[in-house]
Amino acid sequence: VSVDKGVDFANYFCTYGFLYHQKEMLCDRVRMDAYYNAIFQNKEHFHGKAVLDVGTGSGILAIWSAQAGARKVYAVEATKMTEHARELVKANNLQDVIEVIEGSMEDVTLPEKVDIIISEWMGYFLLRESMFDSVIFARDRWLKPDGIMYPSHARMWMAPMRSGLGDQKMDDYEVAMNDWHSFVDDTKTYYGVDMSVLTKPFDDEQKKYYLQTSLWNNLHPQQIIGTPAIIKEINCLTASVNDVLNVSSNFPSSITERTRLCGLAGWFDVHFRGNRDYPAKHEIELTTAPSLDNGTHWGQQVFLLHPPVRVSEGDDLMVSFSMSRSKENHRLMEVELGYKYFDSTLKTVFAEEITTEPV
Amino acid sequence: VSVDKGVDFANYFCTYGFLYHQKEMLCDRVRMDAYYNAIFQNKEHFHGKAVLDVGTGSGILAIWSAQAGARKVYAVEATKMTEHARELVKANNLQDVIEVIEGSMEDVTLPEKVDIIISEWMGYFLLRESMFDSVIFARDRWLKPDGIMYPSHARMWMAPMRSGLGDQKMDDYEVAMNDWHSFVDDTKTYYGVDMSVLTKPFDDEQKKYYLQTSLWNNLHPQQIIGTPAIIKEINCLTASVNDVLNVSSNFPSSITERTRLCGLAGWFDVHFRGNRDYPAKHEIELTTAPSLDNGTHWGQQVFLLHPPVRVSEGDDLMVSFSMSRSKENHRLMEVELGYKYFDSTLKTVFAEEITTEPV
Ligand SMILES: Nc1ncnc2c1ncn2[C@@H]1O[C@H](CSCC[C@H](N)C(=O)O)[C@@H](O)[C@H]1O
Ligand SMILES: Nc1ncnc2c1ncn2[C@@H]1O[C@H](CSCC[C@H](N)C(=O)O)[C@@H](O)[C@H]1O
Repeated sequence: VSVDKGVDFANYFCTYGFLYHQKEMLCDRVRMDAYYNAIFQNKEHFHGKAVLDVGTGSGILAIWSAQAGARKVYAVEATKMTEHARELVKANNLQDVIEVIEGSMEDVTLPEKVDIIISEWMGYFLLRESMFDSVIFARDRWLKPDGIMYPSHARMWMAPMRSGLGDQKMDDYEVAMNDWHSFVDDTKTYYGVDMSVLTKPFDDEQKKYYLQTSLWNNLHPQQIIGTPAIIKEINCLTASVNDVLNVSSNFPSSITERTRLCGLAGWFDVHFRGNRDYPAKHEIELTTAPSLDNGTHWGQQVFLLHPPVRVSEGDDLMVSFSMSRSKENHRLMEVELGYKYFDSTLKTVFAEEITTEPV
Repeated sequence: VSVDKGVDFANYFCTYGFLYHQKEMLCDRVRMDAYYNAIFQNKEHFHGKAVLDVGTGSGILAIWSAQAGARKVYAVEATKMTEHARELVKANNLQDVIEVIEGSMEDVTLPEKVDIIISEWMGYFLLRESMFDSVIFARDRWLKPDGIMYPSHARMWMAPMRSGLGDQKMDDYEVAMNDWHSFVDDTKTYYGVDMSVLTKPFDDEQKKYYLQTSLWNNLHPQQIIGTPAIIKEINCLTASVNDVLNVSSNFPSSITERTRLCGLAGWFDVHFRGNRDYPAKHEIELTTAPSLDNGTHWGQQVFLLHPPVRVSEGDDLMVSFSMSRSKENHRLMEVELGYKYFDSTLKTVFAEEITTEPV
């Protein structure tokens, strides 16, 4: 994929140049606890080692790595956030250990290979932003053969869900279309132009916007109404870009209560397990599953059905999921979802396709 | 100025590709009435003539031009909106008169020079978006020597104003900073990292965001508390890009009531006057001044003072205004404002500089 660097900066990197945005991540306690514990409960991994932090942002992971005893930390960051990271490193008296390097991971040169690559590369529903590509690049170029990845594993999950969100979106869509129809009438009456030929394309546009776009949401665990399924497993030590270009999965889910099936929810988790030669003493998990007390800034990605479907305990759902990168912007994903629904008597009662706009 | 086309599309043109955005403009009755009346009350300008519509969007101005009797209309548009414009032209049975051309105005070739250039190129506070550059280009390349510009003239206005907006923004800023201070405390306590060195840069960032960014607002006429001044006049037939790169003005304003001076408001108007040889029969004005019943989607651009200043009827304000294009994005503007304030006894009581982020 050839990417225009200027466009990528305008669309993607620019937000990371703001402390405000870095702070949002630094305030995510679930995220912070996971990386903090992964590092400090496995200090022996870091002691005396060379570490590469891919996308250091404010520098937090580099600082923890240094505090855990790393000999040297290379902290690479594409945006001007490096200036703040450097100040922070100095204020915490780690300037002899941490070298903050401004540049794209793909472009920088390090003076040595490293023992550990640490990175917080996960986007919404894991793969949004496609930043894992840069981690793979860093690994293949700069990690020693017996090096360790932090995190070492990642998984994507999906489950059926219920929510009032779909009703809301449907209302919004209907308001927009009613408004359009008055607009068409008014434009004919006052300005002598018949706009009705644009009703179909406007309708398509609004449907995409309101109904066919997946949504960020922090779900209550009780909104999950069927068994969750793992749809993708990634070994960060061995995965190639090819392995994450597309994610396809056909999976079953059993409905666990009598309710409305409003859509599917997706989330991810990552694990810090070290590697075969240096397994983690304390394995840490970072999960973004629906949770009462441990919500994250990632929330869950919600794919809505319009309209919802009545389901009962014991009913079976067969879901086919397919995600690929948007051709216009490789950091965004397009999703196609199909499902078959069998009520407890095992006859098909419903089948539908959902296509979503890039998110 | 050299502009990366890809970035310009990502940042600027992309929104115009949506019918939703075109509709917002098509629903602005003040805007629509002005162009409609300008065209149909001056039909003799259009009769049998060749017209160029720079940035035709949905095609509305091209369609009106054709309905008013134009022989040929070239409707140039950079985005895929051309597909909808073409459909609309056909549905209104004008496909023999209007030629919709997809491309940047700077790149397209027309088969002839034109008698009239019509365009709705005005951005917030007139010059945002810098689209007038493309109109100038079109004029110099494609308008006949005795051709007419629609609109023919434009002016920028400023006046002192009062508003509760500044208090709100100040509250938001204070909330953000209080939140930052707890964040710094928590990060030290729970994660062993001292973030206090970033307090100053974070504060700068938040000040810029909340206090030093000008705002869109539809003001009530009574919020204007002093005499308005014209800070720029543009003759669309003769202005060069150089003439609009910077706008500088020192102007006085007399306070007309006892109140708080909270900032300055900027707006614009344009006129459709034809040219010397073909003056408009009915001169039409499109103004975006504060208005009870005739607000526009442009609203006014508000530059806030922090804190506000107590003023009285008869006091004099001397304002220095300077606007130039942002180096990072030529379609956005940076503004510097300074003012001196004399109370009725004519001694200086206050002077301040305001610098705003690109808007
Ligand atoms: N290819 C690349 N090269 C360098 N930096 C990159 C990159 N891709 C993404 N980044 C940076 O990676 C960061 C991801 S956000 C994580 C920031 C920090 N490590 C933390 O955990 O708080 C962003 O600051 C982004 O600008
Ligand atoms: N240099 C350029 N070449 C072609 N189109 C341009 C352009 N600069 C701006 N535009 C287009 O000009 C339009 C301005 S908005 C006005 C649309 C329409 N004339 C109306 O009055 O409703 C947008 O659709 C934008 O995409």
